[in-house]
Amino acid sequence: RELLRYIFQTSNELTLAMSGTGSAGMETACVNMIERGDKAIICTHGVFGTRMADVAERCGAKVVTVSAPMGKPIDPEDVKKAIKTNSDAKVVGIVHAETSTGVLQPLDDIEKTVHEAGMYMIVDAVTSLGGMEVPVDRLSLDIVYSGSQKCLACPPGLAPLTVGPRAVERIKARKEKVQSWYLDLTMVMRYWGTERFYHHTAPVNMIYGLNEALKIIAEEGLKNRWERHRRNAEALWNGLESLGLELLVDSKYRLPSLTSVLVPEGVDEASVRRDLMDEYSIEVGAGLGELKGKILRIGLMGSGSKKKNIVLFLAALGNVLRRKGFPADVSAALTAVEKVLC
Amino acid sequence: RELLRYIFQTSNELTLAMSGTGSAGMETACVNMIERGDKAIICTHGVFGTRMADVAERCGAKVVTVSAPMGKPIDPEDVKKAIKTNSDAKVVGIVHAETSTGVLQPLDDIEKTVHEAGMYMIVDAVTSLGGMEVPVDRLSLDIVYSGSQKCLACPPGLAPLTVGPRAVERIKARKEKVQSWYLDLTMVMRYWGTERFYHHTAPVNMIYGLNEALKIIAEEGLKNRWERHRRNAEALWNGLESLGLELLVDSKYRLPSLTSVLVPEGVDEASVRRDLMDEYSIEVGAGLGELKGKILRIGLMGSGSKKKNIVLFLAALGNVLRRKGFPADVSAALTAVEKVLC
Repeated sequence: RELLRYIFQTSNELTLAMSGTGSAGMETACVNMIERGDKAIICTHGVFGTRMADVAERCGAKVVTVSAPMGKPIDPEDVKKAIKTNSDAKVVGIVHAETSTGVLQPLDDIEKTVHEAGMYMIVDAVTSLGGMEVPVDRLSLDIVYSGSQKCLACPPGLAPLTVGPRAVERIKARKEKVQSWYLDLTMVMRYWGTERFYHHTAPVNMIYGLNEALKIIAEEGLKNRWERHRRNAEALWNGLESLGLELLVDSKYRLPSLTSVLVPEGVDEASVRRDLMDEYSIEVGAGLGELKGKILRIGLMGSGSKKKNIVLFLAALGNVLRRKGFPADVSAALTAVEKVLC
Repeated sequence: RELLRYIFQTSNELTLAMSGTGSAGMETACVNMIERGDKAIICTHGVFGTRMADVAERCGAKVVTVSAPMGKPIDPEDVKKAIKTNSDAKVVGIVHAETSTGVLQPLDDIEKTVHEAGMYMIVDAVTSLGGMEVPVDRLSLDIVYSGSQKCLACPPGLAPLTVGPRAVERIKARKEKVQSWYLDLTMVMRYWGTERFYHHTAPVNMIYGLNEALKIIAEEGLKNRWERHRRNAEALWNGLESLGLELLVDSKYRLPSLTSVLVPEGVDEASVRRDLMDEYSIEVGAGLGELKGKILRIGLMGSGSKKKNIVLFLAALGNVLRRKGFPADVSAALTAVEKVLC
């Protein structure tokens, strides 16, 4: 648990791994922080924000959404407006790393607005934790969850979670029981506490796996790890642009762990993914929701974020695209990578 | 999934493993089968039945409980009465293998009453599946869940689950969304179906583990496995009685996977468990709830159900008890074991 606190950069007492995947983390945050009838402001700038709105609704919340177009971050001004017209809202939920679009959402301004209004902040850090700064203590984020299989480079199955002191108070002061027994933090607190009050059988082998993965991260050093993700992502971005492609997200808001690139006009997106898989055993993500068929989602996470993977991927993608009639300049792409990674 | 159907002895289409431990299986059954405001009859004859009542209440159910004293099974007549006075109830929940007491609950009569009343039956088979018959298709049980780490002898982290056709219809006909997004079977159905609609990242390594564990069970043969659990349990029961101890549960209702034995008057229960652990690395369960301090709970599950473990355990327990002043007859116990296992 000390390691988890290090990865989250937090001194929060209640920092643990829930027995489920990242989506179970999302559900844990919502069921514990929301009581039936509460108003919740949920920011949606992709599939995972939309999912959070759905989860919050199932918790009995009256949900108000603040949206941004797919590929753009949420505008802090829009959050400010929503808070002004919904001053009775209790929580604001937002996705830090929107994996469906590749947007890294800046949180500083939004945090200020949310906390000035006396509301609580739920943050989804599924694809950011371990790959870039997740400012848990710096911004006093109230509840933040992640998944074990993204930048932590561990098999999927656990949802690391940290709860700030204000949120713990809120959870303790609930009038109604948490609607999920399995994810009820008031009970899990007692299990992980000195009392060792029996809750459910923990997936022990997963926990050993996570512990090992966290040790590997600590060995590399969290800041070195962020720097590595950042530098490798820049190399990939330069490479993709030199191939002649366009990135979906403005450079200011790009996620280092997941890059979304537009598929050129006239090229069939599904066949690009299929060829990459069949010929090079490289799996890239498809666009989700309204971006389906329009983008490729390229993950560079954890131990996968390395020069070798970038060079091989650009060569493979260039090759596939050329065969489909798009004049990808692979040499230019590799030169662009060399500029960043020498 | 074919293997899971074999273990459940069912042809239910919707048979899968939920991404969570046995308690997540319980929650899956309740959140999907119960809608807010439904009346639910929950049978409680131990900690896990009581937990099911709690979970059902969190689903918004009006819960009516039918109880039996700890160590006794539920009387089918009591269920009949509860159904008569609560004919508006929708579901009846019951624990097949009550791990907190060691009771194997007969289901035949209860199933008849429940289905004649047009209600649905939720069955907890956490500690029975893979160790004894779980009559899913024979009794048309509507939704049955288990855990990977009990008689299936796999690490904890998955909840095998099977849903009968009537229950599938009921779930499809829900008016309200399932309150848990993570455990929503209407969505999970689409993910596991031909559509492969993305839901959440499955804990893949756990699924490989479960697959392997199920293959091992199929190799042994399900009926051989039941027979082995049964025979070894009988050996243990005879051995314990020959040591001079009394079993909590009447022989007709004993669970082959978990045996509860009364700690003799004047012997400190916690110190027995501590000594077994410190000196012999044998972990036995403590009594839960009102049985705390009164019983030991001895698991004989999966690959742990073998003669070697029984003999070593009886010798160790005899030794610990003798030191505490209880005249345990270890030779008689071993002779009793030999009679069953030759």
